Amino acid sequence: MRKVYIIGIGMTPFGEIFDKDVDNLVSEAFFKALDDANLEQKDIEAVWAGTMLFHKSVPGPLVARATGLVGKPVSRMENACAAGTDIVRNAFFAVGGGYYDIVAVVGFEKMRDVTTTEMGFKMAIRSPLYEQHLGMTGPGNFAMFATRHMHEYGTTSEQLAMVAVKNHKNGAKNPNAQFRREITIEQVLNGPIISWPLHLLDCCAITDGAVSLVLASEDVARKYTDTLIEIAGVGLGTDYSLHAEKKTLTEFAAVKYAANQAYRMAKVEPKDIDVAETHDCFTISEIIEIEDLGFTEKGNGGKFTEEGETEIGGKIPVNTSGGLKACGHPIGATGTRQIHDMTEQLRGEAGERQVDGAEIALTQTLGAQVNISGVCILKRA
Amino acid sequence: MRKVYIIGIGMTPFGEIFDKDVDNLVSEAFFKALDDANLEQKDIEAVWAGTMLFHKSVPGPLVARATGLVGKPVSRMENACAAGTDIVRNAFFAVGGGYYDIVAVVGFEKMRDVTTTEMGFKMAIRSPLYEQHLGMTGPGNFAMFATRHMHEYGTTSEQLAMVAVKNHKNGAKNPNAQFRREITIEQVLNGPIISWPLHLLDCCAITDGAVSLVLASEDVARKYTDTLIEIAGVGLGTDYSLHAEKKTLTEFAAVKYAANQAYRMAKVEPKDIDVAETHDCFTISEIIEIEDLGFTEKGNGGKFTEEGETEIGGKIPVNTSGGLKACGHPIGATGTRQIHDMTEQLRGEAGERQVDGAEIALTQTLGAQVNISGVCILKRA
Repeated sequence: MRKVYIIGIGMTPFGEIFDKDVDNLVSEAFFKALDDANLEQKDIEAVWAGTMLFHKSVPGPLVARATGLVGKPVSRMENACAAGTDIVRNAFFAVGGGYYDIVAVVGFEKMRDVTTTEMGFKMAIRSPLYEQHLGMTGPGNFAMFATRHMHEYGTTSEQLAMVAVKNHKNGAKNPNAQFRREITIEQVLNGPIISWPLHLLDCCAITDGAVSLVLASEDVARKYTDTLIEIAGVGLGTDYSLHAEKKTLTEFAAVKYAANQAYRMAKVEPKDIDVAETHDCFTISEIIEIEDLGFTEKGNGGKFTEEGETEIGGKIPVNTSGGLKACGHPIGATGTRQIHDMTEQLRGEAGERQVDGAEIALTQTLGAQVNISGVCILKRA
Repeated sequence: MRKVYIIGIGMTPFGEIFDKDVDNLVSEAFFKALDDANLEQKDIEAVWAGTMLFHKSVPGPLVARATGLVGKPVSRMENACAAGTDIVRNAFFAVGGGYYDIVAVVGFEKMRDVTTTEMGFKMAIRSPLYEQHLGMTGPGNFAMFATRHMHEYGTTSEQLAMVAVKNHKNGAKNPNAQFRREITIEQVLNGPIISWPLHLLDCCAITDGAVSLVLASEDVARKYTDTLIEIAGVGLGTDYSLHAEKKTLTEFAAVKYAANQAYRMAKVEPKDIDVAETHDCFTISEIIEIEDLGFTEKGNGGKFTEEGETEIGGKIPVNTSGGLKACGHPIGATGTRQIHDMTEQLRGEAGERQVDGAEIALTQTLGAQVNISGVCILKRA
């Protein structure tokens, strides 16, 4: 097993992108990453592409053409919202294992091209036979987790809103974010209810975008850059799809499985993490995730947030990019975007959002019926 | 890089399976493979799942539950008809790289559960803006390749029919095949035209089925079995999606890219291959593929077939299982099924279809607008 480094990063701004097709988004992100790594197309030996919803042609060959790499291998992975993490995990295995020296990953989604019917058809946040008819849409699922967390631990609507306020504050400083404006607790609480207790501003948006990374083995990485960011650990966890089969509604078991694998591989503990991106598809998600990742004890996520510990300057800054909440959430791109943003932090290139002295970062995605999760741990080398 | 061996294989019979759901098919194939390897569920560290069409829930977690491995990593890959090869390629990287000792792959598809509209929507054998309206359905594509091959090389309808006759002859002896009956050249040529010159019996069918393999590193494989089948080389190739962009219509460039990678990794040449499974979705496919894989020169595929060189007992027996033609073609399962069947050949367990003394085998898939292909080379250790 060789060490694997991120030597190039690139992304499109996230948002509603009506004037570009998927091909354009993939190209833009890929060539930015290639430029960032000072490489040429011919140097890339293989690609892993992540997308959930794209269906207008077969994604692998589309990415081959959009990157100018026709002929070379392009694997397409889909693992709901964890796809963008799992492509990095698989590319990491191939480079770390010695099969390739330099590869690229690209996560992308153009959700604005997908009709609501198609999205419902493919997003499958549902178990048709048993739970779908009970209202188990995306917001429905997370509203249930929120009410149970409130019931068991006294978490409040204000604490949920504080997650949104923090992430919008960070996102306002991120040139790639979909929503670059600050919001207040009152704006969240006075907004329309989507699924009680989740208000409009407790929910992330529908987004277009693409993100690309270049990974290289320790054998060649130093030829291209001195700022090496190591992929120190990866993990992928699963859980039961039906909520009725889950052990609890206040814990994401898939996240714990994924995090344990990544912590073990990276030989670090939660207390070692300096900065993290978690999957705040809804505000309650971040509160449960910072507990499951071990940043605070179970049940304390709301209080921990209220105390400012997840803000920049706090004990463990979370979603310094703005998170899914402010960056937006192009499904297959999100996991890759988190790693892009944590690479910026570890390089010291996060500008106004920089966490001083960040050396170890963690990223985490959560998909579908909270039954799939990817975790990645990065270290400044 | 460690050697990687196949130590367990299992599959459901292929066919129209109305009385089992996807979960049942995945379970059946997985537990057969586990039994074959003398392992228990707890021994499996990670899974790679391949499916193109399944959309009733997110496939990764579904496979986790159907295999009883909830919590553990399940990656879902989709690469059109090459998915079943690409899951083996990625699992191979992870085991060969030292990240896991024992993993499973499972390829599956339940095409009979998918409506024609959904299948058209997802199969995407099309380029909507430019070529779809010209009749570029699956059969339309391959009919064009066939007429061009006939024009350039004098390939005949009789030679195409001989591929179907041979593969049905082999499939008749395969208990897992969808069609277990022999056919004649006259039956092919007198059958209804689907897209000239392709008759009904020149085309493969719509099929349900699942196939699973257990892969292990050289460090542990000998603990479980003495009959080791090594994964000696893997490759994945891409091509342009639009036929207008392809260099020729009588060659599958993606197959050549994939095969070159696999030959190089396995350190073998086409002449070293003792038996092969190729992607005979249409009879013309097998003729072009045996040329592109280097079993005979370009243009000679029809004549090579007519001379019986691809029959059992010929120079290079091709599709001894019956191929997609007789086994059926559950999209995400096919690549894995080919490796299952070649493992049987190399173990000497292929019964009436056994190729005497087979030591090196090759499998090859071809997907979508012939713009993606996976190749795997196996060796008896």
